[in-house]
Amino acid sequence: MAKLPVIDPRDVPAQRGASYPQPFAQRVAGRVRRRVGEALGLRNFGVNLTLIEPGGQSALRHWHTRQDEFIYVLEGELVLVTSEGEQLLGQGMAAGFPAGSGDGHHLVNRSPYPAVYLEVGDRSPGDDVHYPDDDLLGHAAPAPRVFRNREGQPY
Amino acid sequence: MAKLPVIDPRDVPAQRGASYPQPFAQRVAGRVRRRVGEALGLRNFGVNLTLIEPGGQSALRHWHTRQDEFIYVLEGELVLVTSEGEQLLGQGMAAGFPAGSGDGHHLVNRSPYPAVYLEVGDRSPGDDVHYPDDDLLGHAAPAPRVFRNREGQPY
Repeated sequence: MAKLPVIDPRDVPAQRGASYPQPFAQRVAGRVRRRVGEALGLRNFGVNLTLIEPGGQSALRHWHTRQDEFIYVLEGELVLVTSEGEQLLGQGMAAGFPAGSGDGHHLVNRSPYPAVYLEVGDRSPGDDVHYPDDDLLGHAAPAPRVFRNREGQPY
Repeated sequence: MAKLPVIDPRDVPAQRGASYPQPFAQRVAGRVRRRVGEALGLRNFGVNLTLIEPGGQSALRHWHTRQDEFIYVLEGELVLVTSEGEQLLGQGMAAGFPAGSGDGHHLVNRSPYPAVYLEVGDRSPGDDVHYPDDDLLGHAAPAPRVFRNREGQPY
């Protein structure tokens, strides 16, 4: 019998932190991801159940050239930071980040409680990532993502 | 100032029912979708906040040739029906349907309460849809989706 498709996403193994080079990675030490889409055999897009500890952040502030991103808050509160300002996201709120927006975003947990959200991003080929606050660029090809500084030097 | 990216998905306009030809459409009359991804400007994948009324169903039982699908239950209970059997999905449970599985699926609400879930599906080109229980085939190109019977006749 084939594998049945229903899971509890909280049973997916947790992965702490990010693949950024140091010193950037330490800023995302409070992020715990569960790769739910991969656990379900999905390949066209990723779905993570992600927990941000108090004081933690989702990522460096960034935008993608090809990938669309979507988030939906399941528990707690997060502050979305973009160049347009800050917005508070409570439980049941959603946000979307279309590819090529040119406006970096990330989520910061300024509350005393963990925050949990679903995040979805597609796997369009040739996606690069820009980090407007940091001397960092992320290149998609060849996978895994390669990080360089703005002068093109690898970390 | 650009549009800020946070929304309450429950504020997105509701769309009742499906685009199937009759007599199939009436079976999905109890489905109410809010196209959250489109409201956020996303194009690479769709995200819907979908409500199934008691006695309703998500779709005809189907599988996609190219599109991956993901669902996450926010409220209530749904029964997932596939060729492998039935599974109950409560709040916080997830399921995934990789492209090309060959095993049709749909969600049925057998409870006395509405059920609400998030559904995500990518927009890979050339996606066809097979409906193993019905004399129906869905072709993706040219958009919008074209429905024919198994002898190739349009509805």
